[in-house]
Parts: sequence; structure tokens; C-alpha cells
Amino acid sequence: MAPAKANGRGVQVEDTRICVVMVGLPARGKSYIAQKAQRYLQWLSVPSQTFNVGSYRRKAAAQPTADFFDTTNVEGERQRKAAAEAAVADMLKWFKNENGVVAILDATNSTKERRKWILEICTRAGIEVIYVESRCDDENLIMANIRDVKTTSPDYKGQDPEQAALDFRNRIRNYEKVYKSVNDDGDEEHLTYLKIMNVGKQVIINRIQDYLQSRVVYYLMNLHIRPRSVWLSRHGESMYNLDGRIGGDALLSPRGEQYARKLPDLVRESVGDDRPLTVWTSTLKRTIATARFLPKHYNQLQWKALDELDAGLCDGMTYQEIKDEYPEDFEARDEDKYNYRYRGGESYRDVVIRLEPIIMELERSEDILIVTHQAVLRCIYAYFMKRNQEKSPWMHVPLHTLIKLTPRAYGTDEQRWDAKIAAVSTWRGKGSTAKHEDPVPSALH
Amino acid sequence: MAPAKANGRGVQVEDTRICVVMVGLPARGKSYIAQKAQRYLQWLSVPSQTFNVGSYRRKAAAQPTADFFDTTNVEGERQRKAAAEAAVADMLKWFKNENGVVAILDATNSTKERRKWILEICTRAGIEVIYVESRCDDENLIMANIRDVKTTSPDYKGQDPEQAALDFRNRIRNYEKVYKSVNDDGDEEHLTYLKIMNVGKQVIINRIQDYLQSRVVYYLMNLHIRPRSVWLSRHGESMYNLDGRIGGDALLSPRGEQYARKLPDLVRESVGDDRPLTVWTSTLKRTIATARFLPKHYNQLQWKALDELDAGLCDGMTYQEIKDEYPEDFEARDEDKYNYRYRGGESYRDVVIRLEPIIMELERSEDILIVTHQAVLRCIYAYFMKRNQEKSPWMHVPLHTLIKLTPRAYGTDEQRWDAKIAAVSTWRGKGSTAKHEDPVPSALH
Repeated sequence: MAPAKANGRGVQVEDTRICVVMVGLPARGKSYIAQKAQRYLQWLSVPSQTFNVGSYRRKAAAQPTADFFDTTNVEGERQRKAAAEAAVADMLKWFKNENGVVAILDATNSTKERRKWILEICTRAGIEVIYVESRCDDENLIMANIRDVKTTSPDYKGQDPEQAALDFRNRIRNYEKVYKSVNDDGDEEHLTYLKIMNVGKQVIINRIQDYLQSRVVYYLMNLHIRPRSVWLSRHGESMYNLDGRIGGDALLSPRGEQYARKLPDLVRESVGDDRPLTVWTSTLKRTIATARFLPKHYNQLQWKALDELDAGLCDGMTYQEIKDEYPEDFEARDEDKYNYRYRGGESYRDVVIRLEPIIMELERSEDILIVTHQAVLRCIYAYFMKRNQEKSPWMHVPLHTLIKLTPRAYGTDEQRWDAKIAAVSTWRGKGSTAKHEDPVPSALH
Repeated sequence: MAPAKANGRGVQVEDTRICVVMVGLPARGKSYIAQKAQRYLQWLSVPSQTFNVGSYRRKAAAQPTADFFDTTNVEGERQRKAAAEAAVADMLKWFKNENGVVAILDATNSTKERRKWILEICTRAGIEVIYVESRCDDENLIMANIRDVKTTSPDYKGQDPEQAALDFRNRIRNYEKVYKSVNDDGDEEHLTYLKIMNVGKQVIINRIQDYLQSRVVYYLMNLHIRPRSVWLSRHGESMYNLDGRIGGDALLSPRGEQYARKLPDLVRESVGDDRPLTVWTSTLKRTIATARFLPKHYNQLQWKALDELDAGLCDGMTYQEIKDEYPEDFEARDEDKYNYRYRGGESYRDVVIRLEPIIMELERSEDILIVTHQAVLRCIYAYFMKRNQEKSPWMHVPLHTLIKLTPRAYGTDEQRWDAKIAAVSTWRGKGSTAKHEDPVPSALH
């Protein structure tokens, strides 16, 4: 047997396959947790996929009423089991045919019998199982989730919102009749599980087996489902931007200064007056200068991890100079921008790795405004918006624009505020050495 | 107020101060956990210190008998409280005068009153408190700890081992009379705490506040206190070693081959026949070749994170060539070998960061044999043996030698097996460009 390989992050990808089995009543943030975990793992280049049993069930029963979920409803039970079987079958196919590493089975899995059934199937296929249960007895949080579901779930599309909320509450009640928390009776003590109580206030971790499991658990124990937003802005236009030079630690241009002075208005418009905000900048002059007129009562924190991608030997050069001096590097970077590492500097992949603690801290935090740099912003944006690694390094992120990202149960909402202060474009197309170039439409979103 | 700075690892060192308060009965591995946490943090450049209340108590009562720990013993109570006060006072001084970041208060802290007292003092001083409780009801583990204590604790030095064990059991009984597990009554629900049950089989995490706390918790949830050892070996002598070249991906020299063939015997002698062992190598040819004659039933795993320090542009050069071509770099590296980053390559600090998952996985694991490279071995060795960052990059790690490290409650034991196969020295003194140089005595240990 050839030795298994472990990748640079220490995640033993080739010999680990994990099925994360969500557990919990409806409206406990299960889908939210599932989607976040998947996004985080993919961002770290760990192949992962979510299998939502509800979407399989909808193929047979698109908009069932609450009594469909009553355990005495034989036909409902049959269809729901069939949906679970179809999801699990697809999951096994995915592990086998697409070298999947972490699958997330998103369903209530609220009975011991269902959990045991999944464990047996996975064990036979050599897949580790970790149960992730979300428990919540905070009525406000449950209500917020119910509101969210009735407006976003396909189960209630086109229905009267009040009626939908009522039906959904009845559905929850049907689940409550049979719901058993993991190891509540003490006979699931041998299982690997994570219980998240009241959105991360308390976490119980049982029998975590290996490194990848412990990474997933570490991420999930840092999550919360309180509503919040993340605001992103690049620094104002810098003197280096004007020259088309990369890297460095330049000051703001006069128009960049204008943006710094306008940023508090933009933030007020977007955030509101009474919402406390924490501001993170990099340690470079241009982000600190951009954030310096923000309200004094905002907490500010400088992170080295938010510094721009290190261009190494190419720091301070224009793309034309790089092409002239290091033609092979110039070409190699265009070939695979995500993985290309500047001589003595960094790749996008390196930036993602150093941003991991930032993402972890962002997940722990309430409202945050991040003032940072083009490449760093692309990586953070890719995390929230699930952009793929091939495309995100080519994404257009305009100067003098405030971006608001709001995580929801089924994705992340985006809003932008244009400060309407002209700035050069720092976007660059493949092969180009132009100082300032208009982005092509595909880079705009 | 100037913005707080966060370092490259994302640990917000300058504005976070944490007191880790150990909780638990004697013989539950508290000192072991405390010392490990401190070692890990220091290895990651987070200033940390352990304050062991027992060693303060010993100043007044060097070898008290069990009745000293009876709560009805007024004089005993007074002296024990005085010891706690002295330890806490020194801890506060350390935070203030030495910019401490994480202090670990190693004591039983087994009553609510004691925990409340510490919380109040820390809160007044702006220090966060996290309680780390070790619970254990596995008699075998407790007995192993008692055996360990009676042979290593200064409380029982020079005493009859049987008598010591008996007395220690009585001491535990006295603690059991007053011991309250954290939040057992539900009125410590507001505290930040971590409960480690039966050495990591289950972990409860309550109200973790910030990133550094979550790092500490993540490390501690991966610990176990089952006895085990870690074996370290460099690859056999390589063709590059003969030439005095660094880096590369060379094959073994004839003497290196000899070492590879002898390694199974060395391992058998050190590990024994019936103990299962997992072997980790780097992804480079010389470590894989060195491990290839080990027993087939050993699991083998290749880790990219175990590859040699990347010398970037200097890869494949001799030190003389480096000095000729990059004289400033050569000098800068000798000036601060831990922090110097090769152009386009890595520093020792970089290696430590990429080794963190390896350390985490090592902590989770049973017996492991690591076949790796000089700089990587130095970093791993520094972690286990608490070597400081200035000295560890200069440490002599001979070729063709098997090192066994066994973590104990009060430090790590080391044993070495010399394969008695000649090899060049790859050690290099400050300023030297010699191909092969005898290590000076200070580098030997």
C-alpha cells in the first residue's frame, strides 16, 4: 500500500472521508451551519458537498402541509424516508466518483433509528460520521429563523406569510414528538458528535477522531447565527495606484483622501447611526489613512494578516516592469493566478491560509468593517460569496466602493455603495501590462 | 486611543490577557495540561507562564501529610490560601511588568468561592478568565497519575513509595469533600469554561470569548494524557549532505542507505515488537527512502508540512556559494536565524507555523515515528523540549540517530539510539561556511 499523502495544510485529505450528519428540529439553523461549513471547507480547497434531504423530498412533495410530517402519516413517512435514501445514495456516489472528502447531510435526523441507519451505511463505505446537532431554546432566535424560512424556503413560496408561519410551527411540533437529542439516553455515547447549544453559547464535543474532524469542529464551535453584516472596502486610491505599481506602502492620492473623508457618510448611510461597528484595517498606511475619519467610538484593530498579497521581489514594480524583468514569472502567474507565488512573496493560496484566522474571527464577531487591499478583499469576498479559486483572483473590486455582505440561511446578500469619487482602475486582464485598464464584463461580478 | 495591533498569526496579542484557571481533583492531569498549554503558546511566540500554587505552598509546608489538606485544618487552610494569594500576586506582576499574555494558574481551584475570588481579581485587572477543568472517573488513569506523582512530585521526595501513594489518596479524599465541578449547580453558567472529561473523550466548551481563547481551547481539546512516545529521526545521509549542499531532493548516500536498512532494528530495540507505530515522513525522497524498510504493518503517511525548510533561491547551494552570491542574506541569517526568511523561501518561524497542524495531530495521536529533516526536527524538538527560539536553529541534530521523546507530567524524557554508522556533520556554526564542521559543545544539547 502506498503511503497516504497529506497536503500542505496538514489536512489528511486522501485517506479521510467524513459525513457530517446534521441533527435538530426545524428552524434551528441547521442549513445555515451546513452551508457555512461547506463554504469554509471549499475555500480551504477541501472537496465538500451538501446533500439537503428537503430538496429531494420536494421532488415528490413540493409544498406539503404540516401533517405530511406527522409520524402517523404513513405516506408522508414513506416519502420522507425515500428522500433520505436518495440523498444518501447520491452522497455515496459523490464520495466514490468525485473524490469527495466532506459530505454534509442536511436534514433533521431527529431519531436514533435514522442516525443509526446513516452510521451503518457510512461505516460500510469506510466513511467517518460526525453528528452536528443544533439545539436552541431561545424563542427569539427560533422566531427569527421561522421568519427567515417562510420568506426564503421553497416549501412556502407564493403562500401567505402568516399561514406559512403557522404551518411551519405545526411542522416543528410534529418533529418534536419524535425528536431525541444525540446521546440523550446515554446509548449514543460511542458516537462522534458536536452539540451546539443556543448558537455557540455552549458546545459539547464527543469523541473527535482525527485532524480534519477537529478542524470542522473548531470552525463550527466559532459560528453564531445572530444576524449581522460584514462591510468591505479597499483603501482609497493610493499614489502607487496612480503609477500602476503594485505592493509598497504608499500614501493616499488626493482622490483617495477624498474617499477617506467621505467613508464615514457612506458607512452611516449603510450601517445606521446607532449600530456599534468594529473596524479592521491592515498595518499599511493606505488602509489606516482610509479609516482615520471614522467615528471615534468605533473600535479599530490593525491586522498584519490583512496586509496586501506580498509581491516579493516584484514589490513596487509595474506589470510592464515585471514582464520585462521576470517574463517567465509574469506568464506563470497569468497561467494559474491562484497558485502562483511571487518570488520571495505570496500566492493567493498563501493569502487564504493566512486569512483563515481572520475568517474564524469574523465568524465569531458581530458587525465588522474591513478596510483592506484588492487581493485580500477578493479572498474574503470569495469566502462569503462562494466564488471559485480560478475566477476570484481576476475579480474586479472597484476603488471607492463600500460593499455590505449579510449572511443568510441560504446564501449571502450583497449591497454596494459607490462613493462617486473617481479613481483609476487597478483591475488587470490576463496578459495585459496596461497601467489602468477597464475591466471586462465577466470580471464585474 | 491607538488601534490595537494583531500579529501575523491573527492572535490579538496586545489587547488580550488571559488567565487560564485549572480546576480539578489531584491526579487528574492538571499540571500536565497546564505545562503543555504553556509550551505550545510559547512555541507560537505567545508570552505565557504557569503559576503553580503547590510550589508556593511548599515554601511554607514542604512535605505536608494528607490532613494538611483537610478543610477542617485551619492552619492548613490558611497556608493554602496564602500560597494561592502569593501565586496570583506574582501572576499580576508578570502581566504588568513582562507584558504577559496567557497565565496558567495551576491548582485544584475546586470550590466556587475560590473560582469567584480569582475571577474578581482578574476582572479588576482587565484579565479574561477561562476555567479549564479536568475530570476523570477512569480508575486506571487516576492510578497511573498517582504512580507518576509519587515518583516525581517534590511533595513525596525521598519517601516510601507505598506510603506516599496512600497519603496522596487520602489527600484526594480531602479534596473530594469540597470539590464542585464548574457550573454543577447551574450558577456558573456565565463563566467561560472548558471541561475535559476522561482525557478528551468528551469536551464541554462554554462561552468562549475571543480568538486567543478559542486557540487555547482548540489545543486543549486535542490533548490526551494516555502514555505514549514520539520518535524522531533525520533521513539517512544524502548525496547533498556529502557535498555540503542545502535543500534539494537528493537520494541517500551509501551510508544513508545503510542507516535505512538498520533503522528497523533501532526501532525494534527502542519501541519493542508488539507496539503499533505510525510512521510519518516528508514528501521528499530522502525521508521516504529512509523509512522504506520499516515493518509493513506500520501505517505510513507522507506530510508536505514535514518537508525541509525551503531555502528559496538558495536551494541546492553550499553555504560558501550563499555567502559569495548573497553576502547580506548570509549575514542577516546568522544575525537572527529564527526570523530570517530565505529569498523566496522560509524562515524557522514560517516552519513553526506550518508545523502547527503537525503538533496538533501529534497531540491527538498515540506512538508516532517521524522521519524528517534537520530544521523541521529542530522545531519539533523545540516544542517538546521547550527550547527557545534563539537557540533551537543552532542545535546539533546528528544524522543516523533515533531520538525518543516521552511526555511526562513534569517535562519530556529523552533517549537516543546511535546507529553507529558514520555520517558527515551538517551542523554549521555562526559565520562558518565549512562544508562539514564539528559542532561546538553548546550546540550538542
